[in-house]
Amino acid sequence: MTERASFREYHQNIIERVATRLEESLPAQWQIPSSLREAMLYSLMAGGKRMRPLLVMAACEALDGNADAALDAACAVEMVHTYSLIHDDLPAMDNDDYRRGKLTNHKVFGEAAAILAGDALLTHAFYLVARLSQVHGVPAEQVVNITMDLAELAGPKGMVGGQAADMEGEQGLTELSQLEYIHLHKTSDLITFSLLAGGRIAGADEQKLEALRTFGQKLGLAFQIQDDILDIVGDEAKLGKKTQSDMKQEKVTYPYFIGLEASRGEVERLTAEAKSAVIEAGLADPSRLLEIADYLMNRDH
Amino acid sequence: MTERASFREYHQNIIERVATRLEESLPAQWQIPSSLREAMLYSLMAGGKRMRPLLVMAACEALDGNADAALDAACAVEMVHTYSLIHDDLPAMDNDDYRRGKLTNHKVFGEAAAILAGDALLTHAFYLVARLSQVHGVPAEQVVNITMDLAELAGPKGMVGGQAADMEGEQGLTELSQLEYIHLHKTSDLITFSLLAGGRIAGADEQKLEALRTFGQKLGLAFQIQDDILDIVGDEAKLGKKTQSDMKQEKVTYPYFIGLEASRGEVERLTAEAKSAVIEAGLADPSRLLEIADYLMNRDH
Repeated sequence: MTERASFREYHQNIIERVATRLEESLPAQWQIPSSLREAMLYSLMAGGKRMRPLLVMAACEALDGNADAALDAACAVEMVHTYSLIHDDLPAMDNDDYRRGKLTNHKVFGEAAAILAGDALLTHAFYLVARLSQVHGVPAEQVVNITMDLAELAGPKGMVGGQAADMEGEQGLTELSQLEYIHLHKTSDLITFSLLAGGRIAGADEQKLEALRTFGQKLGLAFQIQDDILDIVGDEAKLGKKTQSDMKQEKVTYPYFIGLEASRGEVERLTAEAKSAVIEAGLADPSRLLEIADYLMNRDH
Repeated sequence: MTERASFREYHQNIIERVATRLEESLPAQWQIPSSLREAMLYSLMAGGKRMRPLLVMAACEALDGNADAALDAACAVEMVHTYSLIHDDLPAMDNDDYRRGKLTNHKVFGEAAAILAGDALLTHAFYLVARLSQVHGVPAEQVVNITMDLAELAGPKGMVGGQAADMEGEQGLTELSQLEYIHLHKTSDLITFSLLAGGRIAGADEQKLEALRTFGQKLGLAFQIQDDILDIVGDEAKLGKKTQSDMKQEKVTYPYFIGLEASRGEVERLTAEAKSAVIEAGLADPSRLLEIADYLMNRDH
């Protein structure tokens, strides 16, 4: 692309590159039971906006880093995200039959296979991160930092912690701060990881990593509040799932605590603050990050 | 210990050090939902022989490596092992109510919490590995190699692959080679990882790592065949679980294919070959590794 691509083209291009790389990410010569390989790929290739990969790529690009290395990290984070959805959909958890208009993993392959597919995706994500050094020449110190970030932000005090708090909270949240804990960890943490990974691959210094972290936390929270809003006012066909499911499940959301208008205000405020953080950080070119922030705020699905 | 400790004392000492370090391994200042922390610790602290930690420590010691660093890697592998047991016991998988004489994780905390506790333990294991560099000064290149080994040997072509093949196999195995695939991956791979991790922390060269790998694969297979044998002839009180469960579940085992006596012969042959591999490798002191091999062959539970 010699002329600067529109955001839509840029996004589409990354969606395609991620899909190709994901398909290649399980080495063909590896002896993997066919049921396991199929179950992993079924959910990996189920599409979606590839939001987290997009953020890895954009953060790396904002600092003029190696896009090919970032693509592997993007696949790693998509694997972690996918595993979390597979486990989340299980009967013992949210018990969902459909996701993005397709049958959920356990509906197709059975519960045991779905549990194992999730476990395998989580583990394989760390493989993709570890080989950044051998395959792409990312310095081993950075690879160790990326591994530590992923384990921290996806682990017991990160994404899984948010998920556990969400399950606990089904007995009834009484404070907005509890909901914020859930959103921050269940959603923001992996988004924050995506930005840090892209930044680290590009060799970002501490101050720039801090800006990317702030961007991730605020953007992640805005993203989740927007999800809560769309569950109330969104279009089922565009969303590919039933709306008002939160209310039917008596799930407490942002609009429940502060109302729909104030929630919209929060999305705007957080998005503006996220953008300021990266604008002020002196990145080589933050423009794609800013476009992503606007895209997420204005999305209708 | 100035005088050389007996193997029993050596083993007991490691069991205690691992228990202490495991309790410290979830930083107290980390905000983790209490239900998640409890579910993780419940299974982590449920005891057991700590066989994999023992192998990490002994491999590191055989090469005169840093035992304190090895202890963290030992905790990481115990977390991976524990997560695999928690998920394995779930109703959708083996549906076990008891393990080591205690209620299984999901019987105490519920299925959702058990799934998340497993996910969290797997993720946190990679955290313990990653921080080997910062906390113990293990070179970053080695930490990356250990991470890659763990992801490979615990992932889709490793332990999870073995588990998936085992589930597939419940429809009926017809070949000994299929059973060997299951045992090699479900059991040997994580045992092999334990030895490699200990070796890498001690800075083992490729030839010594290869010897440790051979030792792990053969010992792991012998260990699993011995498990199959004990399920037939073992003492329920010592094992802490019901015997003949394999037969009742119509599980195909080594004795099923080649008979009890030939299975015993296999355990002896594999153990002898495992020992030869480390004896010939020129390690500084392989004596604890050899003692472990004998201990496992002669155990009655």
